[in-house]
Amino acid sequence: MGELIRLDTRRPSVEPLWREVVGRRLREHRRRRGQTLAGTASRAGISPQYLSELERGRKDPSSEILAAVVGALGTSVAEIAGQAQHDLSRGTTTMMAA
Amino acid sequence: MGELIRLDTRRPSVEPLWREVVGRRLREHRRRRGQTLAGTASRAGISPQYLSELERGRKDPSSEILAAVVGALGTSVAEIAGQAQHDLSRGTTTMMAA
Repeated sequence: MGELIRLDTRRPSVEPLWREVVGRRLREHRRRRGQTLAGTASRAGISPQYLSELERGRKDPSSEILAAVVGALGTSVAEIAGQAQHDLSRGTTTMMAA
Repeated sequence: MGELIRLDTRRPSVEPLWREVVGRRLREHRRRRGQTLAGTASRAGISPQYLSELERGRKDPSSEILAAVVGALGTSVAEIAGQAQHDLSRGTTTMMAA
């Protein structure tokens, strides 16, 4: 929290955690669709609190939960994975800007 | 097991589970590097049994475990995610051929 991290731009050896980049993308999808936490969570069959934890990268979703959430958002695991891969490949710098 | 599944080729609405495609790719990386379950697991700080379960898609790894395993394999979460995305995008048919 608030710490400066030395970045090696030649090799992004410190990747953000998978759940962090996935969570960020899930939130982005939900907001872009104008959905509330409660609405998306209800469609996915999970609690709004749990969805919020997923979006904030606090919890690792099981593959079944991930599938349910992306289904509720009208997207796919493949799409989220591609976006998360993109975020990971850019390294950590841009992840701290959000 | 052994059931026929009707595939909708227009829209792959039934994606394989994330842990299944990731596990398959982890195993592929390990074998290509000529590493044993025991060797990779030791470097990742997990048991060979657990690594085997991950490779077979039986368990969802935490993001920390995933990072440890890809590190032990000399690859990255981004690379695995990209490959898994590719597998998911191809749909379920090819996943059943392995």
